Amino acid sequence: MAGNTIGQLFRVTTFGESHGLALGCIIDGCPPGLALTEADMQHDLDRRRPGTSKYTTQRREPDEVKILSGVFEGQTTGTSIGLLIENTDQRSKDYSNIKDTFRPGHADYTYHQKYGVRDYRGGGRSSARETAMRVAAGAVAKKYLKQVHGIEIQAYLSQMGDVKIDQVDWSQIEQNAFFCPDASKVDALDELIRKLKKEGDSIGAKLTVVARHVPVGLGEPVFDRLDADIAHSLMSINAVKGVEIGDGFDVVQQRGSEHRDEMTPEGFKTNHAGGVLGGISSGQDIVAHLALKPTSSITVPGESINRQGETVEVVTKGRHDPCVGIRAVPIAEAMLAITLMDHLLRHRGQNSGVATETPKI
Amino acid sequence: MAGNTIGQLFRVTTFGESHGLALGCIIDGCPPGLALTEADMQHDLDRRRPGTSKYTTQRREPDEVKILSGVFEGQTTGTSIGLLIENTDQRSKDYSNIKDTFRPGHADYTYHQKYGVRDYRGGGRSSARETAMRVAAGAVAKKYLKQVHGIEIQAYLSQMGDVKIDQVDWSQIEQNAFFCPDASKVDALDELIRKLKKEGDSIGAKLTVVARHVPVGLGEPVFDRLDADIAHSLMSINAVKGVEIGDGFDVVQQRGSEHRDEMTPEGFKTNHAGGVLGGISSGQDIVAHLALKPTSSITVPGESINRQGETVEVVTKGRHDPCVGIRAVPIAEAMLAITLMDHLLRHRGQNSGVATETPKI
Amino acid sequence: MAGNTIGQLFRVTTFGESHGLALGCIIDGCPPGLALTEADMQHDLDRRRPGTSKYTTQRREPDEVKILSGVFEGQTTGTSIGLLIENTDQRSKDYSNIKDTFRPGHADYTYHQKYGVRDYRGGGRSSARETAMRVAAGAVAKKYLKQVHGIEIQAYLSQMGDVKIDQVDWSQIEQNAFFCPDASKVDALDELIRKLKKEGDSIGAKLTVVARHVPVGLGEPVFDRLDADIAHSLMSINAVKGVEIGDGFDVVQQRGSEHRDEMTPEGFKTNHAGGVLGGISSGQDIVAHLALKPTSSITVPGESINRQGETVEVVTKGRHDPCVGIRAVPIAEAMLAITLMDHLLRHRGQNSGVATETPKI
Amino acid sequence: MAGNTIGQLFRVTTFGESHGLALGCIIDGCPPGLALTEADMQHDLDRRRPGTSKYTTQRREPDEVKILSGVFEGQTTGTSIGLLIENTDQRSKDYSNIKDTFRPGHADYTYHQKYGVRDYRGGGRSSARETAMRVAAGAVAKKYLKQVHGIEIQAYLSQMGDVKIDQVDWSQIEQNAFFCPDASKVDALDELIRKLKKEGDSIGAKLTVVARHVPVGLGEPVFDRLDADIAHSLMSINAVKGVEIGDGFDVVQQRGSEHRDEMTPEGFKTNHAGGVLGGISSGQDIVAHLALKPTSSITVPGESINRQGETVEVVTKGRHDPCVGIRAVPIAEAMLAITLMDHLLRHRGQNSGVATETPKI
Repeated sequence: MAGNTIGQLFRVTTFGESHGLALGCIIDGCPPGLALTEADMQHDLDRRRPGTSKYTTQRREPDEVKILSGVFEGQTTGTSIGLLIENTDQRSKDYSNIKDTFRPGHADYTYHQKYGVRDYRGGGRSSARETAMRVAAGAVAKKYLKQVHGIEIQAYLSQMGDVKIDQVDWSQIEQNAFFCPDASKVDALDELIRKLKKEGDSIGAKLTVVARHVPVGLGEPVFDRLDADIAHSLMSINAVKGVEIGDGFDVVQQRGSEHRDEMTPEGFKTNHAGGVLGGISSGQDIVAHLALKPTSSITVPGESINRQGETVEVVTKGRHDPCVGIRAVPIAEAMLAITLMDHLLRHRGQNSGVATETPKI
Repeated sequence: MAGNTIGQLFRVTTFGESHGLALGCIIDGCPPGLALTEADMQHDLDRRRPGTSKYTTQRREPDEVKILSGVFEGQTTGTSIGLLIENTDQRSKDYSNIKDTFRPGHADYTYHQKYGVRDYRGGGRSSARETAMRVAAGAVAKKYLKQVHGIEIQAYLSQMGDVKIDQVDWSQIEQNAFFCPDASKVDALDELIRKLKKEGDSIGAKLTVVARHVPVGLGEPVFDRLDADIAHSLMSINAVKGVEIGDGFDVVQQRGSEHRDEMTPEGFKTNHAGGVLGGISSGQDIVAHLALKPTSSITVPGESINRQGETVEVVTKGRHDPCVGIRAVPIAEAMLAITLMDHLLRHRGQNSGVATETPKI
Repeated sequence: MAGNTIGQLFRVTTFGESHGLALGCIIDGCPPGLALTEADMQHDLDRRRPGTSKYTTQRREPDEVKILSGVFEGQTTGTSIGLLIENTDQRSKDYSNIKDTFRPGHADYTYHQKYGVRDYRGGGRSSARETAMRVAAGAVAKKYLKQVHGIEIQAYLSQMGDVKIDQVDWSQIEQNAFFCPDASKVDALDELIRKLKKEGDSIGAKLTVVARHVPVGLGEPVFDRLDADIAHSLMSINAVKGVEIGDGFDVVQQRGSEHRDEMTPEGFKTNHAGGVLGGISSGQDIVAHLALKPTSSITVPGESINRQGETVEVVTKGRHDPCVGIRAVPIAEAMLAITLMDHLLRHRGQNSGVATETPKI
Repeated sequence: MAGNTIGQLFRVTTFGESHGLALGCIIDGCPPGLALTEADMQHDLDRRRPGTSKYTTQRREPDEVKILSGVFEGQTTGTSIGLLIENTDQRSKDYSNIKDTFRPGHADYTYHQKYGVRDYRGGGRSSARETAMRVAAGAVAKKYLKQVHGIEIQAYLSQMGDVKIDQVDWSQIEQNAFFCPDASKVDALDELIRKLKKEGDSIGAKLTVVARHVPVGLGEPVFDRLDADIAHSLMSINAVKGVEIGDGFDVVQQRGSEHRDEMTPEGFKTNHAGGVLGGISSGQDIVAHLALKPTSSITVPGESINRQGETVEVVTKGRHDPCVGIRAVPIAEAMLAITLMDHLLRHRGQNSGVATETPKI
C-alpha cells in the first residue's frame, strides 16, 4: 500500500527509480511566505551526491533540482511544491547481469516476492538514489526551522568500523570528506577506506544527528511521540539498522539516579534523555544516533540464488561506496528536519490561546 | 495534534490516564470472523500487570478488559471494537505532593510546557499504565496472526544492568518473573533487583522481540518500511531509548562480506538483517531489540524545580518497579503484533492477482 | 478497512452497535484548556434523543454520556478524550425475526455481503443510534468554536415531503419538535406525520445547516477543500442522499453574472457560494443543505429475500420515526462543527508568522 | 495543511499551477503488474483538454503526460508512479491586470486571505487546469477497475441551464462535444452556448456519473462510507456545488414505501439508492449527480475590490468556457474511479478468508 509519504502536516511524497527518467517529490503543507530557490536545496544535494570525493562512488549525477510549483516570485505560496531531478547518468548495461539474480543483502529478493515484478536496474526504487529527494525536501524544512525558530540541525560521522570519533569540533565536520568532527581521525578513516577498496569490501558506520534550539513542547503522545517519529524517519533511511535517542542502548546499564536529568533554575544539568521526555521535546538538544550497515554491493564473491532457485555466485561490480554511512550525513539531517517540521506544525495546530500558561511556539 | 492512533488499516486508538476513571481503546479494521473473547486479551494483560510478582510495583489493578462492541456471538464483525478497563485502584493522595513539581526524568515538565495544564496524578497520560490498552489490542493482533498465518511473536529479557542473557531457551521465558530465557541467570537478576530496592534505585533493561513464520513481502517502501514502522512502534513504548533490527549497532563494525545474508536453494544462511531487506520482510524471523531506561521514580533524592522555577528536592515515593523493562515484555510483543498486522492488511490491499508471480499472502 | 475515524487534527473515532453494551468515542486533538463537563454534551444529546417527542420513535434511552479521560479539574488537558454512553434499553427480542432477512432499504444485505457476519439486532453498527457519539463529539467542537472564535452553528428543517419552509425565524427552531424555523408550518408538519403514522409509512426531509462568524481562510485545496470535507461529513450521516453548498443544484440554471458574489468595500453583496470560494471559507456564512431519505423501517409490507435467497415479505415493526430527518438536525450541526474544528486546527498548523499579510486566526 | 492528497491505499497527490512550469502527480499504491503506458491516460486527457471544440476555451495545451517512474517494461511495479505534464502555453500577460484585484466568484480573495501570498497568473493553484492530473490518475484507476473487475465508469451531461437531458443513449455520449447522451438535445445546447458567448456570460451544468459492475461490499462505515467518500471526491472538483447519490434531493418528497429498493431472488427491483446501502456498495450501478456553477470568468462587468479594499470593476478577458460543466465529464469519471479504486484496495485489505461466507472481491 501507499508508503511513499512521510509526515502529517508537512508531508513529503517521493517517486523515482535509480535508472528511471527522473526522481520527484511533492512537499505538501509548507507554510507560505518562505523565501525559496533551487539554491537552497542544492547545497545539501551536493553534500549527498556521489562522485564528490574519492571516498564515495564515482557515479556522477549533477542532481540538479528544479522547483516546478508552489513557489511564486521567490517565495512559497502554501500550495504543494513539486520538485524534480532528472536522471542523466543511466548506465543500464551495468546492471543487466543481475536481472534474474537476487543479490545477497539487497532488496532484490523481497521486491520480487512482494510485487512479482521488479525494476532491476541499479536496485530500482530500493536504490539509495531515492534519498536525493529526501535531502531536497529536508533542505526546505531546515531553512524554515532555522529562519523562523532558529533551529539548527547538524549530523556527523561518529564511528566507522572500529574508528570511534569521540571529540566533536563542529567546525571540522565540513572540512573533510568524511563529515568527521575530529580532524585527528581523518587519516585513520582514509586508511580504512583505502584498505576496503583494495579488498573489495565495505564497512558500517554510526552517525550522530543533533538539533539545537528546538522549542519545548514538540511531540504528540502516546504513539506519535517525537522520539518514535524520529526513530521512524531515521530507520526509513536505506541501510539503517538501529536508532538511539540520547544515551540509547547505554541506558541498559544505567541506574535511575544516574540517567535522570536533574533540573535547576538555570536548566537541565545533563542530557541523557537526548532532548525528549515523555515523547515531547524538552528544549534541550535533540540527539540521535543511527547505525548503517556495510553496503552489500561489493566485489567479494557471495553465494545466492536466481529466480529459478539455483545457486549463483554474485559479484557486484559498478560504482559503489565502501561506506554508505558517509553520504548519509545530509540524509539524516534531512529526515530529522522533516520530522521536526511536521511536529512543529502539528503542535501549532492543536495548541491555541485557550490555556494561558502555554508558552507560544 | 491527534497522536493517540497507530496503524493505517489495523488502527488502534487509545485514551486514559493513570488515575482517571478508565482506560479505553478502539481497534478499527480488525477483519471479520475472528473468534474473540475477553479471555484472549486477559492472559497478556496479566503478564503486563503490576503486582503480579515481588519484582514489580505492588499497585494492584485487576485490569479486567471488557469488549463493548465489534464482537457478536463470539466473533468479530468487521466493525470497530471498543475495549474498556476501569481503574479501580486510584490512590490519588500518593501524588498530590508533585502537583507543582517537575520530577526529573519524567514528562511532568514537558507536558506542562506543551499543554499548560496537566493531570499530575500518577503521571496522567504519560504513565506506563497507558500501555495496558496496547497489550489488549496487541493480543487481538497476535491471535489473528497466529490463527490465520501461523505467525508467532515472543519477547524476552536479554539484559538488565550488567547481567547479559546470551542463552535463549524459549521454554524458560514464562517460567520466571523476569521473562528470562536463561534459567541460570535468574538468581543474578533476583539479586540485582533486591540490591536496587534496598538502595531505592532502578536499572535499565534490554529486550528482544522475535516474530516467526512471517511471510515474505510485508512492508511498504520507502517511508513505511516494515523496519521503520517497527522502530516507530517500539520507540513509542514508555522509557524506550533505542531500537535495533537484526544486528543493530553491531553493523557499525561489520564488513559487507560478513553482514550480507547469503542465500542457498534451502534459504538464507544467516540472519544479520533481522528478517527485513529493503524495508520488506524476507520470510526469516523478524528480530528486534529495544533499550529501556531505568525508571526515574526512585527514592534516591534528586534535584529539580517547581512551577515557580524554584529548586526543590524530589523523592518519588509510591509503588514503583526497580526495572520497568520486565513488564515491557508483553508490551513489546503487542506493538510488534500491531505493526505486523497493519502491514499484513496493507500488503493484502495493494497486491492483487494481476502479477502472476506474486506469492499470495 | 478502518473507517470509523473522521478528521485529521481534530480526530473523532467511534464504536458501538445499536444493541451492544455501549457506544463510545475518542476525541483526539482537542486543544487543552477548554472548560468541559458532561453537561456541555448532554443538551445536544437530548435534542437528538429518540422518545423526546410524539413525533419520533418511542424507544427511550437516557443517553447519558460519561467523560472517561482527557479532562482534569474541569478542563481539557490536550490528551485524548474518552466518552461512553451505556445502552440501557436493549430489547433484542424485537429484532430476532430479521436475523436471516435482508430488509429492503437497509444495510442488512450489504453488511452481510461485505463481512460475512452481522450483528442483526436493530441494525447493529448501521443503526442511526451510532450518531449519538457524533453529537457528543460535535458538542465539544461547537463549544470550542463558539468560545474561542465566536463561531455559531445551527441547523433546521427546511422541507419535509411537500411542506417547504421558506421563512427562517431563528428563534423558532427550538420552539417546536420539528426544528422548524417557521411557526406557521408546524401544523402542516404535524398533520403530515400523523397521516404517515396511520399509514405506517415514512417521508424524506431536507435540512439546512449554517455556520456564522467563520473566519476567512479555512480549507485546504485541492482535495481537502472545506466544501469537499463538509460534503463528506454530511453525506456520512445515515440516510443522507444529497449535499449542497450554497445554491447547490440551483446553480445548474444560473448565469455566471447572477451566481458570482460581487464584493464591495463593505463585504460581499450576496452569498450564492455558501461561504466557500475555491475550497476556502470566505468569511461569509457557511450554508449547506442535505437530503435525508425516508426510513425504510415501516409497516407497509415490502418484498425482499432471506439469506437463502428466497422471497420474503418484510414488515418492520418496532419503534421508528416516520421522518428521521427531524432528529438529524443536531447531527448535522455536529458534523459541520467537527469539520470546521478540524480545518481550524489544520489552518493554524500550516500558517505561520512568515507571510506578513496573513490575517491571524 | 497538507490537502493535496486523496485516497488511503490508492493515494493520489498533485501539484501545479495554471501558469507554472508543469503539473505533476504521484500515484502511490497502484497494484503491480498492470500494463500501463502514456496512451492509457492520453485519451481522457484529450477529452478534458481545452481547445478541443468550439464550445470550450481556446487555450491550447497539448497536455502530454509523461510517466517518470513506477512502470518498468510496460507494467506497474507497485512503487510510486510519477506523472508530469509540462505547461507549454503560458500567456502570463493575460492575467497581470488581476494581480491586485479579487475577481468575484473566484478564489483570489480567499487564497490571498489564507496564505498572504498568491500566484495570480490564471488563478494559480485554484485554476481548473489542476484537474488534468486528476484525469491522468483516474485513467490508471479506470484501467485497473475495468481489467481486473470489469467495472466501467461513464459520465454525461444531464442538464445545462434549462436544457434537461432525460433520454440516455450511452452510445451518443462521445458523439458530440457536450457529452450529451441525447442527440436530439445537441442543437439546443449549441444554441445556448452561442447565446452565452455573444452575451459574454456563462451557465451552470449538471452531470451524472455511473459505475457499472461494482462488486457488493465496497465502503467502510461509519465515516468512510462509499457515498461519503464519493461526495468528497466529486465536491473537490472545481465549481461543484452539489452532489447527489441515487435519487438525491428527490428523496425529500418520497415515501419510504416508494424509496426502498425491494429485492427479489433475481436482484433489486429498482435503484433509488444509487447503488449504496449503509455506506456499502450493493452491487447495483453506482449513480451520482453533481452540480457545477457557471464560471465567473465572464466579460459581463462585475463589481469587486482590490487589495487596498477599493471598489473596482472586473471584466475577465482571456480564453474561458461558457460552461465548465462540459469539460468536467472526464474529471467526474476520474474522481469516481479513484474513490472506487481506493475502496477496492481497502476492502481487500481488511477482508480475509476468516469469515467463510464472505464473497471474495
